[in-house]
Amino acid sequence: MGKINVAIYNEYYHERHDEKIGAIYPKGMHQAIADALSDDPAIGNIVLATLDDHTTVLSQECLDNTDVLYWWGHMKHREVDDEVVKRVCLRVNQGMGLVVLHSGHASKVFSSLLGTQTGRLRWRESDDKCLVWVVSQGHPIVEGLPPCFEVPADETYGEQFGIPEPDELIFISWFEGGEVFRSGCTFKRGAGKIFYFQNGHETYPIYYQDEVKLILKNAMHWARPYQKKIVYDLGGGNAPPKVSGRVER
Amino acid sequence: MGKINVAIYNEYYHERHDEKIGAIYPKGMHQAIADALSDDPAIGNIVLATLDDHTTVLSQECLDNTDVLYWWGHMKHREVDDEVVKRVCLRVNQGMGLVVLHSGHASKVFSSLLGTQTGRLRWRESDDKCLVWVVSQGHPIVEGLPPCFEVPADETYGEQFGIPEPDELIFISWFEGGEVFRSGCTFKRGAGKIFYFQNGHETYPIYYQDEVKLILKNAMHWARPYQKKIVYDLGGGNAPPKVSGRVER
Amino acid sequence: MGKINVAIYNEYYHERHDEKIGAIYPKGMHQAIADALSDDPAIGNIVLATLDDHTTVLSQECLDNTDVLYWWGHMKHREVDDEVVKRVCLRVNQGMGLVVLHSGHASKVFSSLLGTQTGRLRWRESDDKCLVWVVSQGHPIVEGLPPCFEVPADETYGEQFGIPEPDELIFISWFEGGEVFRSGCTFKRGAGKIFYFQNGHETYPIYYQDEVKLILKNAMHWARPYQKKIVYDLGGGNAPPKVSGRVER
Amino acid sequence: MGKINVAIYNEYYHERHDEKIGAIYPKGMHQAIADALSDDPAIGNIVLATLDDHTTVLSQECLDNTDVLYWWGHMKHREVDDEVVKRVCLRVNQGMGLVVLHSGHASKVFSSLLGTQTGRLRWRESDDKCLVWVVSQGHPIVEGLPPCFEVPADETYGEQFGIPEPDELIFISWFEGGEVFRSGCTFKRGAGKIFYFQNGHETYPIYYQDEVKLILKNAMHWARPYQKKIVYDLGGGNAPPKVSGRVER
Repeated sequence: MGKINVAIYNEYYHERHDEKIGAIYPKGMHQAIADALSDDPAIGNIVLATLDDHTTVLSQECLDNTDVLYWWGHMKHREVDDEVVKRVCLRVNQGMGLVVLHSGHASKVFSSLLGTQTGRLRWRESDDKCLVWVVSQGHPIVEGLPPCFEVPADETYGEQFGIPEPDELIFISWFEGGEVFRSGCTFKRGAGKIFYFQNGHETYPIYYQDEVKLILKNAMHWARPYQKKIVYDLGGGNAPPKVSGRVER
Repeated sequence: MGKINVAIYNEYYHERHDEKIGAIYPKGMHQAIADALSDDPAIGNIVLATLDDHTTVLSQECLDNTDVLYWWGHMKHREVDDEVVKRVCLRVNQGMGLVVLHSGHASKVFSSLLGTQTGRLRWRESDDKCLVWVVSQGHPIVEGLPPCFEVPADETYGEQFGIPEPDELIFISWFEGGEVFRSGCTFKRGAGKIFYFQNGHETYPIYYQDEVKLILKNAMHWARPYQKKIVYDLGGGNAPPKVSGRVER
Repeated sequence: MGKINVAIYNEYYHERHDEKIGAIYPKGMHQAIADALSDDPAIGNIVLATLDDHTTVLSQECLDNTDVLYWWGHMKHREVDDEVVKRVCLRVNQGMGLVVLHSGHASKVFSSLLGTQTGRLRWRESDDKCLVWVVSQGHPIVEGLPPCFEVPADETYGEQFGIPEPDELIFISWFEGGEVFRSGCTFKRGAGKIFYFQNGHETYPIYYQDEVKLILKNAMHWARPYQKKIVYDLGGGNAPPKVSGRVER
Repeated sequence: MGKINVAIYNEYYHERHDEKIGAIYPKGMHQAIADALSDDPAIGNIVLATLDDHTTVLSQECLDNTDVLYWWGHMKHREVDDEVVKRVCLRVNQGMGLVVLHSGHASKVFSSLLGTQTGRLRWRESDDKCLVWVVSQGHPIVEGLPPCFEVPADETYGEQFGIPEPDELIFISWFEGGEVFRSGCTFKRGAGKIFYFQNGHETYPIYYQDEVKLILKNAMHWARPYQKKIVYDLGGGNAPPKVSGRVER
């Protein structure tokens, strides 16, 4: 297969309005995510989009040329353009991969694709230690990971997490305070693969951690489409189906 | 458990604008569906709603008192009020059952809850014979059904059906012209159970057929909520979770 | 529906060979489980079986009249009779419910039905506090439970748990030492429903705890068959299928 | 990733005891399957095993070096060695891919891994035309296939198929006589991926058909393990888990 073209959306608000966060991610979390992927031999183009420019950057043409889209948002979900959300959701159904990160659980794209109204969950901010347990051994997304790894401190997310039963549950996380969370989940919509990964609160340098970088990379390979854009034959009229029995070459 | 309160939404357009269809369902398909349920010992109230009055009938109070909502729509999906759609989707997440019938696959409520943009599928109108095969033996929805039953003529639906992988695949249908279709599927969103059932094109007396009436009835029992309205504790703040360890009585 | 006939298998070894355990369960864990179910208005017969008498008690006739079978075993899995295991597995495929408890994860019946060789998991014995989180809101098995409850001390089980992806993940447990575990899972085999529940190590009075008793009761209602014994028509020969289109009454 | 080492088990009975079948597969179906894979750039070794030599050929060493095992059996399931079955099932749990073909649905390896007693289904032999419909668009196994293709004649399989709910339903087949069948299904056991594909009765030249050859090839890429042999840390003792937080390199 060819190179993997990636687009990364980051709200890019906290980094510019909070000195401490800006010090952790001086070029924004989107750049940190891009850096985590950039040394992968399979990487193609990396397009960066933020709230300020997403309506122009995430054009139909851009999405048509994107294999995997990463999404990080938090405070400004409502300001994301509805046309962009529609375009993204349709492209996912046509085969584009989507990796939703941390508070992206409440983004328009994630809730629209999952059919949850809220993506609700329990949360706390108290520097809890987080242990991320692999539950789906042998899955491409966990390739190279140990059975469990530690995130020294992150925002605590906890059940009940308002998602449909995931197709595959990849990670379950343990938090010092007593919560558990389905921190890695896969879903499929149409021909498109979706991966949600919890860790990555803006106040911690989590996207620099080796295990997290590896997960971002593995997810890119897992979520990439295997086929060119899927266009469905919806039939219609009253003719019986034409069965080509021909392999597309 | 107590009685089951049901609400039935039917677009109620075809029956009034096409003589042949009006002759099959003189009081509308909603009445035929209500009649199929009315002799069940567990039945409580049955509320009937149509496109004309759905904004007032399907009020929050009505939905709060509804255990299972049936939904039939076809030509007028776009005219369904978005506020009603939001109310319905939220109530499903809180535990209300939803039974989506036939071309309801393209309704706003179904696509919003499933996260499909289109609910697309193949279709033909040619009086094909349809064989409905049970694939999920022992499921409450198939109780009392034979392994396979015939619908003498119906609109043909065919794969690919644009839905997420169902939680449970209940029926697969065979059509004379060569199509197959996942004609009975279950999904869960939040605390609410959703059942999609394909058969029931407006031009055929399908909602009078014994097997179909039994399915509508079984689906009501399966989809009813087991708990009072689910209200999720979203935590927040920075306190660790209060663990009551107390059974709610 | 009629009364629910239950059978309970307990190895019944620890209680008779360890004074402390015998003091907790003087009549055996099977009796404690029976007591948890006995005041349910829907309860029918309760048959008790132990390792010593299971070959005679769990006869074909007994299993044919059993709606839900509970299974607790630990040290003596290998001594369970293979004919009984076959009978149980076949009956589950025909519709009998099965509730597998604690170290029953390694029993012949559970591994045979799940297709795991081992049902392997991580474990520790150190009186860890266990928090049991509901993840499947609105499921019949969690009816009446709070979002989370505490088991003051139990054996620690942890991922990776060698099971296929459950049909429904009902509970995830948190342990003080850092483990997480999919402590409540449902599976279906043929027409039979299977529920695995983790808590219940022999050295703790867990089957006397209200939440656990409620779970045992809810599981009985959830796992009971909806249809009489399922007998599959396997066709054969070369005749096309006879489609009765007749509702079984 | 490196080359893919494949092993193919074929009962190899019909081809030698029925002239017509021998004329279709003069070197046996295992050779036809090998030929379908042999021109794939990723192919490594191909080991061929038959009922006569499977106890020696399918040794532990061979299985340890196998990435994907294909399995075709029909009349002689019972004669397959139980030690080989155990080795195969354990290796699948450790990550080896398994592709089960046609009447392999009743093989010991398939029933043991799925937990079905029988793998039962309906069947007829009457040269029915079979239409294979893709239901899982964008899945690697359907890459390059049209939405539907025709198998001119095959043995008819029909529901109810005695399998657990598949992780992914890939194909549904339509048969002239009225049956439908879940003809392509995926399952996961431990770290191993399993694909069942129906078409391929011994009396038809189906393994020479382009679409079927493509499916065999795609399945090889999909089922290959991503990680070296998975060895699970089962913990034990009473120490809390050692969390390396180290990426395995």
